[in-house]
Amino acid sequence: MQPYFNELYGNASSLNFFGVEAKKALEESRRTIANFMGADANELVFTGSATEANNLVLKGHAFKESKDRCHIAVSTADHDCILNSAKWLKKQGFKVTYMPVDQYGLLKMDNLEEALKENVTLVSVVHGNNEIGTIQPIKEIARVCHRYGALFHTDAVQSFGKLPINVKEMNIDFMTINAHKLYGPKGVGALYINKDFKIEPLVHGGGHEFGLRSGTENVPGIVGFAKAVQLREREMKPEAERLTRLRDKLIEGVLEIEDTYLNGHPTKRLPINANFRFSYIEGEAVVLGLDAEGIAASSGSACSSMAGEPSHVLLAIGLKPEEARGSLRLSLGKYNTEEDIDYILQVLLKVVKRLRVMSPLKP
Amino acid sequence: MQPYFNELYGNASSLNFFGVEAKKALEESRRTIANFMGADANELVFTGSATEANNLVLKGHAFKESKDRCHIAVSTADHDCILNSAKWLKKQGFKVTYMPVDQYGLLKMDNLEEALKENVTLVSVVHGNNEIGTIQPIKEIARVCHRYGALFHTDAVQSFGKLPINVKEMNIDFMTINAHKLYGPKGVGALYINKDFKIEPLVHGGGHEFGLRSGTENVPGIVGFAKAVQLREREMKPEAERLTRLRDKLIEGVLEIEDTYLNGHPTKRLPINANFRFSYIEGEAVVLGLDAEGIAASSGSACSSMAGEPSHVLLAIGLKPEEARGSLRLSLGKYNTEEDIDYILQVLLKVVKRLRVMSPLKP
Repeated sequence: MQPYFNELYGNASSLNFFGVEAKKALEESRRTIANFMGADANELVFTGSATEANNLVLKGHAFKESKDRCHIAVSTADHDCILNSAKWLKKQGFKVTYMPVDQYGLLKMDNLEEALKENVTLVSVVHGNNEIGTIQPIKEIARVCHRYGALFHTDAVQSFGKLPINVKEMNIDFMTINAHKLYGPKGVGALYINKDFKIEPLVHGGGHEFGLRSGTENVPGIVGFAKAVQLREREMKPEAERLTRLRDKLIEGVLEIEDTYLNGHPTKRLPINANFRFSYIEGEAVVLGLDAEGIAASSGSACSSMAGEPSHVLLAIGLKPEEARGSLRLSLGKYNTEEDIDYILQVLLKVVKRLRVMSPLKP
Repeated sequence: MQPYFNELYGNASSLNFFGVEAKKALEESRRTIANFMGADANELVFTGSATEANNLVLKGHAFKESKDRCHIAVSTADHDCILNSAKWLKKQGFKVTYMPVDQYGLLKMDNLEEALKENVTLVSVVHGNNEIGTIQPIKEIARVCHRYGALFHTDAVQSFGKLPINVKEMNIDFMTINAHKLYGPKGVGALYINKDFKIEPLVHGGGHEFGLRSGTENVPGIVGFAKAVQLREREMKPEAERLTRLRDKLIEGVLEIEDTYLNGHPTKRLPINANFRFSYIEGEAVVLGLDAEGIAASSGSACSSMAGEPSHVLLAIGLKPEEARGSLRLSLGKYNTEEDIDYILQVLLKVVKRLRVMSPLKP
C-alpha cells in the first residue's frame, strides 16, 4: 500500500499521468479480487466498508424497484447492518419479511419457500455467521430463490478468503466482502453485482465505480485489499484445515467445563469461530477475565457490543436473554497456534470457575 | 498510521484490550480534528469520504424531516455529490430549490432570500469551490439562513486546513471535510453536526459513530486524518500566504496569453486554485499537452472528468459549453515552488500556441 500513500497518490479519476498510475493500480486490484470469486472485474464495486455494501444492495434494490413491487426477505440471524437497513426500508414503505433460523442458525427452508411465494424480489442471507459461525447452504438457498424469480444476496464477509466461493457456480447475484477480515486494511469493502442486474447508488456524486458509489477512490486501501486476497489464495486451504483442527480442539476442551454449551452448528461452521454459553455467569465477565490474562475475546459482535443488548443472533437461535448474555465468542486467526489453545483452555477454566463461585445464580 | 495497520489493529468497538487501544486512538483523533474547527468531539462523525458526508447531511436531513416539511436549497455551483443527492431526493418527492450564482460563482444573496421565504429547512453552499476556487461568504450566508429559520451546511473540503474555519463563530450547522485534501489518506471524510440538530443515518448497522454511520471504524485512516490536521495547524497560515503569491504570479503570467480569461473570482479565491479559459481550443487538449511535459492538470473536477460533459460549475457562472470545454484548472500545493510556476508558464504558452495554430476555430 505504501507507494500509493507516498508517491503514486494521484486521483484515479484524473486524466493526468498521476491519475493514470492510480487508475491502473485500482483496476488491477479490481481484477485480482473479482477473479478470486469467479466474477468479472466490472461486477465489483468498491465501498468504504462491508456495512456500506450491505446497505447499498438492500437500499439500491429497493429504490430501483417500485414500492409496490419490491419485497425483501432477510434472515433473522443476519448482521445488524442488514437488519437495520431492512427496518429502515420498511419504515419507508417497502415490504420486508424476516425469515427465522433453527437452533443452529440455519435458515429454515420451509420458511424461505413460504416467503418466496409472496413475490419476494430479493433474499439476503449471511454466508458464514459472524457470531456463531454457522455456514448457510447458500448455493441451495440461491437455487430456491431463483426458482421463484427472486434475486439472491449474501453477506460473505466472514467466509470470503476462508472458504472457497465462486459466485457463478453458487448462483450468487450480489455478494458483500471486505478487506480487514482477510488481514487487509479497514475502511474498504466491496459489493459483487451480477452484471445482469441493476441497483441504484446509495452514495451519489461524480459517478465513480460505474456510477454506483461516488467518491474519490481509496487507492491504497483497495491495493491493500487485493494484496490481502492474493496472499489468501495460497493460504486459504491449509489455513482452513489448520484452524478447523484448532477450533475443534478448543470446542472439545471448553465443552469439558460443566454446564457449558456450544452456540451454532457443530460442524457446519467457520474454521475461525467458536461460541459458547456458560450457565450462571455473564459473557462480558468472562471477556474481562480473559482480557486480564492477555486473551482478546468478545461476548457478541464488536458492532453490537456497544448497544449492551443481548445478541439478536443468539436470540434468533432460540436462546433466552440470560443465556445470550452468558455467551462468549472466540475467533481464531493466522497468528494462533496450538499452544494458544492450551493456554486459552487453562485460563478459561479458571475464569469460569471463579465467576461461578461468586454467582448468585449457581444452584 | 503504520502502527494501526501492523500492531494496534484492534476493532475500536470491541471491549477487549486490542479494541481499547484502537478506540483511544480513534477518540484522540476525533478531538484533534474537532478542536481545529472549534467543535466538540461528539459533533464529528467519520465517513468513508466527503462525498458520503455530503450525501449523509442532505439525505439524513430529508429523511429526518417529513416530506411535507423538508425543503433543501443548494447552489448550482456546488459539487456533483450535492447536486446529485438533491436530484435523487427530488425524485423521491422532497422539495429542492437550486440557487444561481453570479459570473464569479458567488451565491446571489437575493436568490438566497427568495428561496428562504419558501420555508427552506436546509441550505447547502460550498465554501471554496473545487473547480474555480471562489470562496463564498459562508458566515454571512449562514446568518441569513438562520434569520429565516433554515439550517446551514457547507462543503468545506477545499477550504478546511487552507483557510481558518471556526464552525461556531461562522454559524455553521453542518460541515463536510476530508483527509486527502490535507495530504492525509484517501477514504476518510467527516461531517460536523452541531449537537443541537439531528439527522438520520445514511448507512445503517451496528450503531457506530453515534448511530450515524455504521461500519468498523477505519482507525489507521482516521489517525492519518488527525495527523494531517495537526501538521496543517502549523503550516496553514504561511502556506496560504506563499501559495497566494504563487497563484497570483501564475494568474498574472497566464493572462498575458492573448484571448485568455480567468474563471472564478480574482481575489475571493482559494490560495491553491487557478482556472482559465482559452478561446479556440479544448481544455483537455491543454491537459494532454501539459501532461507530456510532466505537469498534472485537469480540465474540470477529477470527479466529473469521467462524464465527458462540460463542467456544470462553469456553465453555472454563465459560460457557454464551448467556453467551459476550453477551460483548464491548475491546483497548487505544498510541493510547488516558484520555479514550478516559471516552468508551467513557459510550457503552457507553448502548448496553447501550438493548439491554436491547429485550431479550426481560430479566426
